[in-house]
Amino acid sequence: MTDSLKAIMFDVFGTVVDWRRSIANEVRAIPQLHSIDGELFADRWRGKYQPAMERIRSGDRAWTKLDQLHFENLNEVLEEFDVDSLNDAAKWHLNRAWHRLTPWDDSVPGLERLKSKYIIATLSNGNVALIVNMAKHAALPWDMVLGAEVVGHYKPQPESYLKSAAMLDLKPSQCMLVAAHNSDLVAAAKCGFMTAFVARPTEYGADQKIDLEPTSDYTVVADDFIDLAAKLGC
Amino acid sequence: MTDSLKAIMFDVFGTVVDWRRSIANEVRAIPQLHSIDGELFADRWRGKYQPAMERIRSGDRAWTKLDQLHFENLNEVLEEFDVDSLNDAAKWHLNRAWHRLTPWDDSVPGLERLKSKYIIATLSNGNVALIVNMAKHAALPWDMVLGAEVVGHYKPQPESYLKSAAMLDLKPSQCMLVAAHNSDLVAAAKCGFMTAFVARPTEYGADQKIDLEPTSDYTVVADDFIDLAAKLGC
Repeated sequence: MTDSLKAIMFDVFGTVVDWRRSIANEVRAIPQLHSIDGELFADRWRGKYQPAMERIRSGDRAWTKLDQLHFENLNEVLEEFDVDSLNDAAKWHLNRAWHRLTPWDDSVPGLERLKSKYIIATLSNGNVALIVNMAKHAALPWDMVLGAEVVGHYKPQPESYLKSAAMLDLKPSQCMLVAAHNSDLVAAAKCGFMTAFVARPTEYGADQKIDLEPTSDYTVVADDFIDLAAKLGC
Repeated sequence: MTDSLKAIMFDVFGTVVDWRRSIANEVRAIPQLHSIDGELFADRWRGKYQPAMERIRSGDRAWTKLDQLHFENLNEVLEEFDVDSLNDAAKWHLNRAWHRLTPWDDSVPGLERLKSKYIIATLSNGNVALIVNMAKHAALPWDMVLGAEVVGHYKPQPESYLKSAAMLDLKPSQCMLVAAHNSDLVAAAKCGFMTAFVARPTEYGADQKIDLEPTSDYTVVADDFIDLAAKLGC
């Protein structure tokens, strides 16, 4: 079933790294934000992610990289929390917390195994600097950073998957997307990608309601990246 | 002098890998090309590289990735050698010899050391598939593939250097180009990059005439990548 597989591409936020806990910890470490619930702050910030990209997908706004969208969204969240005591340098430092996210425990050892047999690349909406800095910070052993900035389209636009495959000179049927999100996998499958669902049931905290189970028929369903490596013969 | 250095970018053909010997060996391994001097074939093929890119730099031809330029150039070289016995599959296999080039002995150990302290990325005119496949083949541990295809410009156009730095969210002054070619380093320096010259005195064979010595004042001159790592404190 996976004989033709050459490259495994990964959603990053939530699938490879635990953005919510990482952002919450960074928020708590800032004296001016000490009294704010870090997880609530992270959720509010992340809540503005899809609407910001949607303006670009729809053509309402020119291409803008995620670092800039994150920064604009951060300013809105700070205003909602009535915080006006951070200067621009402090805000940009916090904004780059997205470059310092912590991987789930199985991510690095699983990726190392998968890399021994396949090309492993990111297919994220994160910009290149964000993904490269995160990789250096967290020892994520990517062969290549593909996705939004390199191809100029935000997921789930079909171009984001199709142009990423084309850049490796591969057919979509030679590529697999790994994600903890059903919507991303369904979009990739429509483009002809193989798919692997790995649940991350605490991505949104203990009360997570969505993406606890696969809701479509994927190529592989794995418990974590180590189980995925085993199921792909690595 | 190099305190601000964050990312080291590498020319690839000739600087990291020994394209001439690798291509010559692949030519010799093909029965229909058995009687041809492999090095002469490699030189003729490589000789068509700059003219093919020049048509794109000048705007005379739309963006075309290097694999395609290599293929068109290969057809011309085969014709010059009066070879008409290779079918398209055999020609594409030979064309992908550029994905299977062998590194100089110091390349991998030097890169491993440099990677421990800096972002290491390619800044090559090779397309992404070529560079990624070469990295898998030769265990080149790149953090990122930048350069021509990702930024849409062939070196030595300034955009190729400037957009590669921008994609890492770095100033040119935080980046260094490593190359065995004076012309590439001079172009990068004009864009504000730091520069490192590493001579590869047999890139063009025993009678090489150019690039035996640095001809400008570079940030670093190193004997090989291991010496470069030592000089950059890795």
